[in-house]
Amino acid sequence: MQRKFRYVTVDQALRDFMKAVKLKLSYENLPIYEAYGRVLANDLTATKDIPKYDMSHFDGYAIRAGDTALATVNNPVSFRVVGRTRPGGRLARKVGPREACYVTTGAYLPEDTDTVVSVEAATAVAEDVIEVRRKIQPGEHVIPQGKDVKKGETVLEKGHALRAQDIGFLAALGISQVKVVKKPIVAILSVGDELTDRFDEVGKTFSSHALIFSKLVGEEGGVPIYLGIAPDDKSKIQSKIRNGLKKADMILTIAGVSKGDKDYVPATIETMGKPGIIVRGIDIRPGRASGAGIINGRPIIMLPGLIQSALVCFYVFALPLIRLMSGLSSSNLWTIIKARMAERLVFTEFIPFKKVTFVRVVRTPMGIVARPFTGESALLGIVVKSNGFIITPENRTMIEEGEEVDVHLLPTPLPYDFLRE
Amino acid sequence: MQRKFRYVTVDQALRDFMKAVKLKLSYENLPIYEAYGRVLANDLTATKDIPKYDMSHFDGYAIRAGDTALATVNNPVSFRVVGRTRPGGRLARKVGPREACYVTTGAYLPEDTDTVVSVEAATAVAEDVIEVRRKIQPGEHVIPQGKDVKKGETVLEKGHALRAQDIGFLAALGISQVKVVKKPIVAILSVGDELTDRFDEVGKTFSSHALIFSKLVGEEGGVPIYLGIAPDDKSKIQSKIRNGLKKADMILTIAGVSKGDKDYVPATIETMGKPGIIVRGIDIRPGRASGAGIINGRPIIMLPGLIQSALVCFYVFALPLIRLMSGLSSSNLWTIIKARMAERLVFTEFIPFKKVTFVRVVRTPMGIVARPFTGESALLGIVVKSNGFIITPENRTMIEEGEEVDVHLLPTPLPYDFLRE
Repeated sequence: MQRKFRYVTVDQALRDFMKAVKLKLSYENLPIYEAYGRVLANDLTATKDIPKYDMSHFDGYAIRAGDTALATVNNPVSFRVVGRTRPGGRLARKVGPREACYVTTGAYLPEDTDTVVSVEAATAVAEDVIEVRRKIQPGEHVIPQGKDVKKGETVLEKGHALRAQDIGFLAALGISQVKVVKKPIVAILSVGDELTDRFDEVGKTFSSHALIFSKLVGEEGGVPIYLGIAPDDKSKIQSKIRNGLKKADMILTIAGVSKGDKDYVPATIETMGKPGIIVRGIDIRPGRASGAGIINGRPIIMLPGLIQSALVCFYVFALPLIRLMSGLSSSNLWTIIKARMAERLVFTEFIPFKKVTFVRVVRTPMGIVARPFTGESALLGIVVKSNGFIITPENRTMIEEGEEVDVHLLPTPLPYDFLRE
Repeated sequence: MQRKFRYVTVDQALRDFMKAVKLKLSYENLPIYEAYGRVLANDLTATKDIPKYDMSHFDGYAIRAGDTALATVNNPVSFRVVGRTRPGGRLARKVGPREACYVTTGAYLPEDTDTVVSVEAATAVAEDVIEVRRKIQPGEHVIPQGKDVKKGETVLEKGHALRAQDIGFLAALGISQVKVVKKPIVAILSVGDELTDRFDEVGKTFSSHALIFSKLVGEEGGVPIYLGIAPDDKSKIQSKIRNGLKKADMILTIAGVSKGDKDYVPATIETMGKPGIIVRGIDIRPGRASGAGIINGRPIIMLPGLIQSALVCFYVFALPLIRLMSGLSSSNLWTIIKARMAERLVFTEFIPFKKVTFVRVVRTPMGIVARPFTGESALLGIVVKSNGFIITPENRTMIEEGEEVDVHLLPTPLPYDFLRE
């Protein structure tokens, strides 16, 4: 018995679906070399002070400041240079009264010294003897122990995606492995008699949607695996999905979800386990045929076959789920910027649904402007020409030229060029 | 003879350096599966119309609109259904007068039809016979051939980094390989007696900077290779750099560039070929010891040893060069946002240099606010706690609390969370 379409709001659909998903994160320990971009499983707390000891911020001589108390231009105080240190090392002996140690920038101060006289402020008067001609304050040119990070301080929080500097910082703390969230595995199934994965097959359509969603999954931090193409045949769809359930944390099916006589995906999923389909139909266009369900605890998202509809369904159900499964927050999915509409946008067909319109935002002398693309939801070229989309509420049938809109920026492999200055 | 420091403005330094660099891009043909994130070598022009033929936007019946000219509720016109088509296929025969072909959404219209009657607007009166009870306009529910993309149209421009939808689009155009810019290979050399690449080596400093710059190079689209550590020894530095010149398009050296008695990198580079060092010293802090040169046509960037100085040098010289070598523009390097300073920032030491201050920007109910981190340029923790930086001009010694500043956002492996809403 196939569940009928029952359109619910996007928010309601997502709530219903997420309530049914039982999220269970998996973790792995990775060498820090391989942890770039990965999400911390726990708060990261400094295991030691950085710097480990007081450190020199200049090339100069580490001394005891007290020894210079009476130093003046006419009454220089001399110091015997008893050693040299460089970053990483530390003088093996203490430095006594009227003794100095040559330190380069970044070197630790020897024990019992508290200040650094810069090379410029010291006068070499003999081999291994310097003179200082003014009173030096304790702590001058010194980075105190723990100034950068204090032992016990939480430096990076659980859920943080590790950047270049964070990896270096872990190394500086002496941490060689780090516990991160395992990337969710997302299986992708194309459905349709007309599809082929062979580029040169005449009379068939290349399954390009699978390629797009595979790259989108990777972009969001998931690991895509491709289950191939199932024809419009219930038992073959079922067998591919079963295969996916064994390997993946979630499944995306593409096409076969609408009202056509060969749209077998929802009916197939209903026979495969409980709770089965949770959502069938959402009040947004394109994408209203979107669906989502759960079999054996694994989420299945049913993307419609037309590319724009499939993208909207991916945005609504797959993105938040992939983010949650990656250990990230699901509440802030999009970079949103304000833009002014470059032209009037009219929705000719009135339906009480939200409407998604792909746009291209550009920086102009008059500010950021969004040019809308209208066109049927089968059109991929529109999505290629776009770098964002807007959502128009149910009750609006028109957006005026010049009206301010919130543009959701589409993901890109590089930072948004047009935002750069 | 080692060239002395001669501080020039950042703009001047970059101009001098870039003028001396002879940029020569290399290209490779990649299967589209492997081209995600890669930069197009040429404008990409559509090789065919998409859709290839007129396409149905609904489930319905493709007919000739003219046949319905006299149709009314009381005067239905009947059509014989002579075939069915689905996306990908096309009916082998033409459709004649008063004939119809069942088409599903996304299917091509058979030859000689010009409109689609939706399933709801047609009445099935017998097997293979439908009736239409109103006049239908030509083109109704039809996506005209070439509506999405016209043959010959430039769809993606040279220098565009391929996104998920672009890859799918190439596939839809039947393009299986694409010419992209080869990623620049960037060799990284750590310099310093105190350094080790072994995590557990006592009395040495782990070479964490190399790790950071390796990840930053990767983040910006380069391929990092690590030349290892050279001790403070001219011949060993030279041999490592020679090795790098064989393998890489550019070289980053880390440390050994300042005025200390063991800072051998610039002097070594001067002996290795023409033109040698182009820039030694820039008027920005941290980073003033930055340098850049060219040997045998290969750029060498000399990063100072302290992490913040090294980062600034990387931002000034390496980022624009990596972007140019990747086929991208070098003019828009940063995402910059406006923020208000959370507290007053005072520069105690007056120097007529630009000053870089790392900040953490956060979204607050009062807008985006930047909290500055002050501290010596050896401190890595500050960079870890930051997500951006500001540049204060030469003539300013203070930024007031609440003052608006331009924050350069640091790169991250995921989109900027705090910008999401």
